[in-house]
Parts: sequence; structure tokens; C-alpha cells
Amino acid sequence: MEYIHQNFDVNFKYGVHFSSHLFDPANTCLSAFLESRADAAFQKKLLVILDGGVAAAHPGLPDQITRYLSAVRGFQPAPEIITISGGESVKNDLPLVFSLVDAIDKYGIDRHSYVIGIGGGSLLDLVGFVAAISHRGVKHIRIPTTVLSQNDSGVGVKNGVNYKGKKNFLGSFAPPSAVFNDSHFLTTLDSRDWRSGMVEAVKVALIRDTAFFEWIEEKAVALTSGDMPGMQYLIFRCAELHVAHIGGGGDPFESGSSRPLDFGHWSAHKLEQLTSFSLRHGEAVAIGIALDSVYSFLLGWLDEASMYRIISVLKNMQLPVWHPLLEKQDGRPSPVVAGLEEFREHLGGRLTISLLKAIGTGAETHHMDLDLLYAAADICKKLQ
Amino acid sequence: MEYIHQNFDVNFKYGVHFSSHLFDPANTCLSAFLESRADAAFQKKLLVILDGGVAAAHPGLPDQITRYLSAVRGFQPAPEIITISGGESVKNDLPLVFSLVDAIDKYGIDRHSYVIGIGGGSLLDLVGFVAAISHRGVKHIRIPTTVLSQNDSGVGVKNGVNYKGKKNFLGSFAPPSAVFNDSHFLTTLDSRDWRSGMVEAVKVALIRDTAFFEWIEEKAVALTSGDMPGMQYLIFRCAELHVAHIGGGGDPFESGSSRPLDFGHWSAHKLEQLTSFSLRHGEAVAIGIALDSVYSFLLGWLDEASMYRIISVLKNMQLPVWHPLLEKQDGRPSPVVAGLEEFREHLGGRLTISLLKAIGTGAETHHMDLDLLYAAADICKKLQ
Repeated sequence: MEYIHQNFDVNFKYGVHFSSHLFDPANTCLSAFLESRADAAFQKKLLVILDGGVAAAHPGLPDQITRYLSAVRGFQPAPEIITISGGESVKNDLPLVFSLVDAIDKYGIDRHSYVIGIGGGSLLDLVGFVAAISHRGVKHIRIPTTVLSQNDSGVGVKNGVNYKGKKNFLGSFAPPSAVFNDSHFLTTLDSRDWRSGMVEAVKVALIRDTAFFEWIEEKAVALTSGDMPGMQYLIFRCAELHVAHIGGGGDPFESGSSRPLDFGHWSAHKLEQLTSFSLRHGEAVAIGIALDSVYSFLLGWLDEASMYRIISVLKNMQLPVWHPLLEKQDGRPSPVVAGLEEFREHLGGRLTISLLKAIGTGAETHHMDLDLLYAAADICKKLQ
Repeated sequence: MEYIHQNFDVNFKYGVHFSSHLFDPANTCLSAFLESRADAAFQKKLLVILDGGVAAAHPGLPDQITRYLSAVRGFQPAPEIITISGGESVKNDLPLVFSLVDAIDKYGIDRHSYVIGIGGGSLLDLVGFVAAISHRGVKHIRIPTTVLSQNDSGVGVKNGVNYKGKKNFLGSFAPPSAVFNDSHFLTTLDSRDWRSGMVEAVKVALIRDTAFFEWIEEKAVALTSGDMPGMQYLIFRCAELHVAHIGGGGDPFESGSSRPLDFGHWSAHKLEQLTSFSLRHGEAVAIGIALDSVYSFLLGWLDEASMYRIISVLKNMQLPVWHPLLEKQDGRPSPVVAGLEEFREHLGGRLTISLLKAIGTGAETHHMDLDLLYAAADICKKLQ
């Protein structure tokens, strides 16, 4: 039997830039990036898709964006900025996916041109998916506007939309061309978004970086009260750890079952869905971190003092550490606990759950003891 | 301004296997591949999507596939084989995309499981796209059944479907896990598909491999008459050259404008569309190769004798070298020639057209002289 072997590497690189007031004419962060990608032989195009919530919180922003981009040499912005709503619900709207594909067609966005998404993680997930499937992938730039998207999802390589109620059922891995984190957008976040976005930093510190956890622990109250320089450092270090994991972890496109960055997330995804997203993602993850930290303690992996420190940090951030759906309901299993099997199906293959051996050291298990899990939930209830 | 740099490589590898009677229980080519990917900890799943034309030409094939896959250790085939029509029209059916996504959901095809497409290039393009966007990419195996898909599209890394009449507007780059070329499927091809599929071998020989062109030249009449061992060598060498170009050309996911493998294709895509696909892809490419070879001669790049040899090979394969749509229509431009600008838009950026410096040596131009192009079309008309 004859055989041909194909084997090649594809290199992906992008920068995560940190700035403020990106569309101020004096700020050359974005324009310098674009101009470095210009081609003397032809004009490249730009299409902006903007979160309506961000537009409402920053009056005049669309005009400012238009003026800014019109001045970039070698680029031609589309004649309109497309404004859509943000939040998780934007990922449930398949007709919207196709209306954005239509805009890419209408405005002649080709494989040398850029789609720029400005908004929270959900909008960026949607825009990234639309860009990834149009013309076999047009370039996209992410401008995340929330704590959560600036420190986690916005700096990563995934996109996706929900399909028939299944979270991220449609999506792909498609690294952005660049990410621009603008701290000014954080000033108009509501308090729940500000606070809950910090939980991904707690998560990544717990599995990777003891010193960062200790810094967060010391600053938790100040951060929660609105300390902006503190928040900027938290976002930078959290983004840096996420970027390092994706690029250095050996499996950027997640071909295996291991998802260390999903610590605290198996129950969080289910809680978000069961509460119809009335829980913020970060609030659900706070509960998930509390549950899996206490479970790690009951398993004998994590010492008791560390467990209490973790719960304290979350409470100092005014985040929940327990939810009634973690309990058995009239003798029937907790619907969150029942979601373990769904999580296994989502990953495919063996159940793989991230737990803690110590603060700063994650570890994985392939088996969850349900009695121990209910006992952990009971401790979270008492500690809330 | 702070900055984080992300930089990583993703490795892609897959084998292109050549066999015959793949689903014969005695043939271990496919089963050995699958069993090498089994995991003792859990069952992986298989979902087969089969071209209805292939099923009709090979009665009993679905049962044979079911028996074969049921015997593979570590894998569980879905309870049904999904049969859909083949041909270009299958790529115009967006509801079909979603019905196949639904099947992936229904049968629990996760990121460790495999979707197996069996059919011509269009079916494989559709199945590859469905696999690429489900669960951020489930694995897929290609079993191409035509000359064209076995020697060209089926061994590559692209997928796609048409959208609102635009060819491959939706799609991605997603290498298969493996390709299995089964020569037995070629025995039931009709004569037009058998002959026209060979043209991609002529194309790649012209731009890359003088000796292969000379071999094709010598064998053209025999190949056209149904020489199976000759066809097997033609497919192998053509696939090998395509695989080498994709893996070794430095741009497997086509981030630039250069498309050397698209020699003869700019006019072919337009001819297919203008004739509502009554011209086979290979027939349209034969015309495109003739046109661009004669144009290369008129430009002074290719010598006259080589030009005549190219036309002769195509004619010996009983393939067309001219079409009335290459002429001006009542004084208005030829609609094919007018398609040059559309081709530029498709690539984005500068117009980049592959031409010939010699048999075996491709070269690119960024400018097409329209008078010279009409003169070339006129010569093709006389030589037909």
C-alpha cells in the first residue's frame, strides 16, 4: 500500500496591547499596529462591530472611532459601524451570525482586511466566529471592554456561538491578529461586572502562581472598592498567565481532554445555564472555585488553611461561594452535580477535572466522588 | 504601554493512504489507522456521511461499511449512515449544513470522535466544514471517490460551502486526520469525470515537474481510454505534489495572495459559474490552462513548441481548450475576462495570476493585458 505523509507547522502570533483611550487621535497604539500591516499596492478595509452597551456608556464613541480609523494610512473603514447588543444572549442569535457574514460580503472585507470587535467576551466570541468562517478566515482584532474579556477570553484563541441551547456548540480556534485592552472602558462597568471579572485571576493564580494569589489576597478589598491601578495590574498578570498557558502549554487548540484553565468551570457552566445567565460568568466561577477548593481539601489534596484563604478572598470580593442548586432537590440529585456527565460529554473521552494540590498548584482527577462533592457543597453553604 | 507577545506553532500531520476495496473485511488499512487512535479508557464514535451517487453505484456499500466499522476495536459507529447527494449543488444547501451539525449533536460526536466523509470533492468540502465548526472542530477522515478529489482537493486542507451564490464564501482551513484513496471507487465513474479529473495532474506537472508532464504526455491516450494502473500512478504523483506544496510551500493556510496551484483556475471558476456547472471543474480548468498557456506564449514567457504540447495533451484527453464565453459578446467584454476583477477581490489585495515560464516552471504576474488575453482566446479557438 502506498502512503504520503503530510506534516507542517503553522505559526500563530499576536500581541496583547494595554492602553487607555484607544480612539483618542493622540493615541497611536492601534494606528501604528495597522500601519505596520499596510501594503503600498492596495487599500485594506476595516469593519467595526461594536457592543451597543459600550456605545451607550460612551456617547460619541462611534464618531470618534470613525474619525480615528479614517486617518489610518493604507486602510479604508466601511461606511458604517455595526452596533449590536452584548451579553450572552448575542451568542444565541444564528440569524445575527449570517447578518454579520452579509456585512463582510457587502463591505468587501477580504483576507487582507480586518474585522474589529469592540465589546465584552460574548460579542468577541461571536465576531471571532463570523471572521473565522468568512472567506476561510478574515483577520480580526479584539478590543475587549470588560474585566473578564480583558484578562481571559479576549486574549485567547477560541470563538463560538451557542446552538440549540448548547453553549459554544459552533465555534473554532482562530487566533486574533491583535488584542487591545483599553482600561478606560472599565470605568463604566457596573459593580457586578467589575467584581466578578476578577475571579479568573483568582483561578489562574490558584493553579499557577502562588505569589499572584498572595497579591490578590492582600488587595482584594481595595480592588473590590475600585482601585484602578490595582485592577490594571490584575488584568495584565492574569492575561499574561493565560497567554503563557495557551502558547506554552503544548496544546493551544485543545486536542486533548486536559483543561487546567477550566478550574472551577464544570459546575459554573451548568449554574449559568440553570439560572438562565442571571448569574454572571464570574459569579458562577466563584461558586465553582469554592466548591472544587473545598472538595480538594476533603480529598486530602489541599490543606485546611489554604481552603479558608480561598473562600476569604472570594468573600472579600463580595462574590458568592454557594448556590441552592448545589443541594439535592427533594431527594433527587443536584442538577449541577448531574451536569458532571454533560461536562464529560462536552470534553469528550474521560472525565477530567482540575483540582488543587496547593495554592498555586493545580492537578487533575478523572473521578469525582459524589458523596464528597455533596459534603463540599454543604461546607460552602456554611461558609457563605 | 505594556505589551504581551503570544507566539506558538501548531503542528498538523496526516497520512494519505492508497488502497482498494477499503471496506472489505480483509483490508486493514482503515481499521488499523482507527485502532492506532483508540483509547482504552473510553469508546470513540464514528459518523459516516456518504455520497448518494457512490451508494447507488456500489449496491450493498452501506451494509459493508456498517459491518466493517462495527468490528473496529475501541470505536462505536453511529446507528445510521447519513446519505446525501453529491456534486456542487450539495454546497449550496445551508439547511443541510445544519442538519449535519444536528447529527453530530444527536450521535454525540465529540472532539475525540471522527466524522467520515465518503464522496467527491463537493461532499468532502461540506463535511469538512461541518466538522470544523462543530465543538470547535471534531476530527474528520476523507475518503475521496473521484479522480479529482483523490488527486487534489481531498488531500488538501481546505473546506467550504457556497453562500448566496458565492463559491466557498463560508469555510475554513482544517486538515483532515487522514485521507484514504480507494481506487475501486474510480471504476464506476462516468467517462467525463474520469477524464476531467486528470487535468489537475496536468496543471501541477506544468508548474512543478517536467518529468511528470512528459509521462502524462506519453500516456495521455491510454489514460483516457481507462488505463487503471496508469491512473493510479497519476493520482499518486499528483497528490504527492499537492501535499508537498501545501506542507512545504510556507503558507499552508494561504495568508498571502500567491496561489501557484491555482494555475488555470481564475477563468475556470468563472466558466463553471457562468455555465451553471454544466462544465465539470476539470473541463473548465482544461480551458483555463489552455488560455493561460497561450497567454504565457504571447507574453514571450513560454516557447511556442511547449504551448502546442500543452494543447495536445489536453486534446488527447478529449478535454475542451476553448469556450464561446471567452469571446467578446456583441462588442461587450467577455464575461470570463470581466471576472478577473472578481478573482482579485476573492484573493484580496493585488491581482496575482500564475503563468508558465516553461513546462515544469510556473511564475506569477500582477497584470493581465486584456488585448493579449483576447488574442490568446482567439488562438485557443483556432486550436480546438
